[in-house]
Amino acid sequence: MIAVSTDDLHRLTRTLQSEIPLARAMKVEASLFDARGLCLRAPLAPNINHKLTAFGGSLANVAALAGWGLVQLLVRDLGFPVVVVIQDCRVQYLKPVVSDIEALALLPDVVRIDKFLRTLTRHGRARLELEAHIPAADEPAVIFSGQFVAARHD
Amino acid sequence: MIAVSTDDLHRLTRTLQSEIPLARAMKVEASLFDARGLCLRAPLAPNINHKLTAFGGSLANVAALAGWGLVQLLVRDLGFPVVVVIQDCRVQYLKPVVSDIEALALLPDVVRIDKFLRTLTRHGRARLELEAHIPAADEPAVIFSGQFVAARHD
Repeated sequence: MIAVSTDDLHRLTRTLQSEIPLARAMKVEASLFDARGLCLRAPLAPNINHKLTAFGGSLANVAALAGWGLVQLLVRDLGFPVVVVIQDCRVQYLKPVVSDIEALALLPDVVRIDKFLRTLTRHGRARLELEAHIPAADEPAVIFSGQFVAARHD
Repeated sequence: MIAVSTDDLHRLTRTLQSEIPLARAMKVEASLFDARGLCLRAPLAPNINHKLTAFGGSLANVAALAGWGLVQLLVRDLGFPVVVVIQDCRVQYLKPVVSDIEALALLPDVVRIDKFLRTLTRHGRARLELEAHIPAADEPAVIFSGQFVAARHD
């Protein structure tokens, strides 16, 4: 089982904000990791739109970064450097978000994680399909699914 | 045929940048409208990522905003206020973008535009599926397809 400390979350937040100017503009932070997956948060103000709800682009970005961050955490202990990029995604907007954005990237089951890490270790490259949800008033507001590619990068 | 002047493009840029803080952070501008559709541009610097290529979230956002802007231009002369939101999208990342981002939202054929505007006028609500492309070195780098919903908003 993957173990993630508060320090790891701070480190991920720093990585996001220092390497991606738009993540800094969105004020994205890694806020929680538990058995469900990785949660990223972003305040509403910098991510608002003309309807005074969360901008669809920000919602998609926070969800995608949650997925990207989750893959980073999964590959962290492999012992070789890995670059993670997104290859494909789908975003369904079910209802508006009128509060801070909270995206939960769901941890895949152990079998899929093992297969992903094994393929990456053996072949230097592997794909992982991830889902992330953004709730609003305890109902799903945004459903994101994305395919991420991790590649060994020595 | 829809007619769009330089003033219209400036107005769209102002709308995007004043109503959506993230569009301002991305420095998105409406740059061109022609028979192919609406083109939005954003410089690479505020939209860069850890690999020094355009951030996937920025690419998706510029494409989505091009689609959103195109719908705005289509409904502009209906004579009643319309709110446009995105309902669903898919983004395929085919290759990295290492220059300024240029997204072209493709104008649908006249039959689809007419049907969309007629439905919106009659029922106060209509959907339009749009595609947007971002090239890199004259090849498609990102293909975006999104479903937009326009609703009369008196």
